[in-house]
Amino acid sequence: MRRFRLTLEYDGSALVGWQRQENGPSVQSAVEDAIFALSGERVTVTGAGRTDAGVHALGQVAHFDIEKAIGAEKLRDGVNHYLRPAAIAVLEASEASVDFHARFSAIARHYRYRIHCRRAPLVLARGRAWHIVRNLDAKSMHDAAQVLVGQHDFTTFRAAECQARSPIKTLDRLQVRSEADEIVIEASARSFLHHQVRSMVGSLKLVGEGKWRPEKISEILEARDRSACGPVAPPEGLYLVRVDY
Amino acid sequence: MRRFRLTLEYDGSALVGWQRQENGPSVQSAVEDAIFALSGERVTVTGAGRTDAGVHALGQVAHFDIEKAIGAEKLRDGVNHYLRPAAIAVLEASEASVDFHARFSAIARHYRYRIHCRRAPLVLARGRAWHIVRNLDAKSMHDAAQVLVGQHDFTTFRAAECQARSPIKTLDRLQVRSEADEIVIEASARSFLHHQVRSMVGSLKLVGEGKWRPEKISEILEARDRSACGPVAPPEGLYLVRVDY
Repeated sequence: MRRFRLTLEYDGSALVGWQRQENGPSVQSAVEDAIFALSGERVTVTGAGRTDAGVHALGQVAHFDIEKAIGAEKLRDGVNHYLRPAAIAVLEASEASVDFHARFSAIARHYRYRIHCRRAPLVLARGRAWHIVRNLDAKSMHDAAQVLVGQHDFTTFRAAECQARSPIKTLDRLQVRSEADEIVIEASARSFLHHQVRSMVGSLKLVGEGKWRPEKISEILEARDRSACGPVAPPEGLYLVRVDY
Repeated sequence: MRRFRLTLEYDGSALVGWQRQENGPSVQSAVEDAIFALSGERVTVTGAGRTDAGVHALGQVAHFDIEKAIGAEKLRDGVNHYLRPAAIAVLEASEASVDFHARFSAIARHYRYRIHCRRAPLVLARGRAWHIVRNLDAKSMHDAAQVLVGQHDFTTFRAAECQARSPIKTLDRLQVRSEADEIVIEASARSFLHHQVRSMVGSLKLVGEGKWRPEKISEILEARDRSACGPVAPPEGLYLVRVDY
């Protein structure tokens, strides 16, 4: 038995998310099926983050165990062969120690959220960013975001179906910057609650529009009340960029 | 009668190119049809560059004449409404003087060509870049490219079906840089021959791979012989970025 670690890129647009589900193609099932086609073995692939339907990845990390004697490069190329034409690719494969666990060994997860502010519909960024027709004030969003950095009870920013045992998380970074007609938000933490990034972005967007005062972010955090959160930002702007171990 | 100037973004993947054709949807026909749906007038839309099938635009410029009294913002939003779900959007519309001609008034056209160098298939950049599985040496490509800058007879880099009266053009800029696993080539000129950018990129790629010595670019330029050119780079990496007037 050997354990492999994979780094995956995917376009979440036509996927039901990371996790195997009845209602459509998931990243997990596509990768497991490709490994089966290559090796004849039914394996379980465990990911660092269970991304939702529509969410993309530039560097999701996963692991699985396999009996077959196969080299890492052959595995990468073979899985990529069987993944076609799925919108998923293995960027890297390497043999890992049996202690390595894609989810539990992770020490940091880095997400990016992209917002395009313009009047015209999105074309090249369609399905790859949140489209907002008015301009957002990136500086006020960034300033307001800083109260969320650190260890807090993030109940306000947590989906009802979140399975985490505790709502207390430590947010290491939440940066908002503007690039041409785009707003880019970078969020880093050891781990996140379900919908936490999209909930934070949805609330910050209201600050960027001037509908909320910046201090409101601190107020809703302290409320520890899901109903105080702004509307959750849509999945198509979110990217799992990197996982550190 | 009033003349309007449009700035257009499009994803060329599913389009037969700029020009109206029998065999599929073109940018020109889609925009003309949307203007007809909005105004009831059959107009001819003239573009700054007649991009090929698969080529993208971030800032194509076009003009047309219309009788209907309509404001520029309503025109932009109305054309965008009727363009849906085509992979084309009007970024800006403005009224122009009757002297303005999208093609003949242009003083500079700026193209970008994107190459992704990696083993894995492209996912988020699929149809948006040339995929090459080996690394290219951007510096040797850039150095070799500089002999093409200036006024030359570009017969070697000209498609057989090119309709330009003269093969002599002045290339203002041809820069090659690397960004992560991407090679980005920026080309600027008052005008280009048909397939000129893709022909130059296809030849520079051979330099980047080490298959051609850098001096070979100067030799094939001086040969003024189409058969001396490297294989033409595919359309999906090419973007019409901006047109200056």
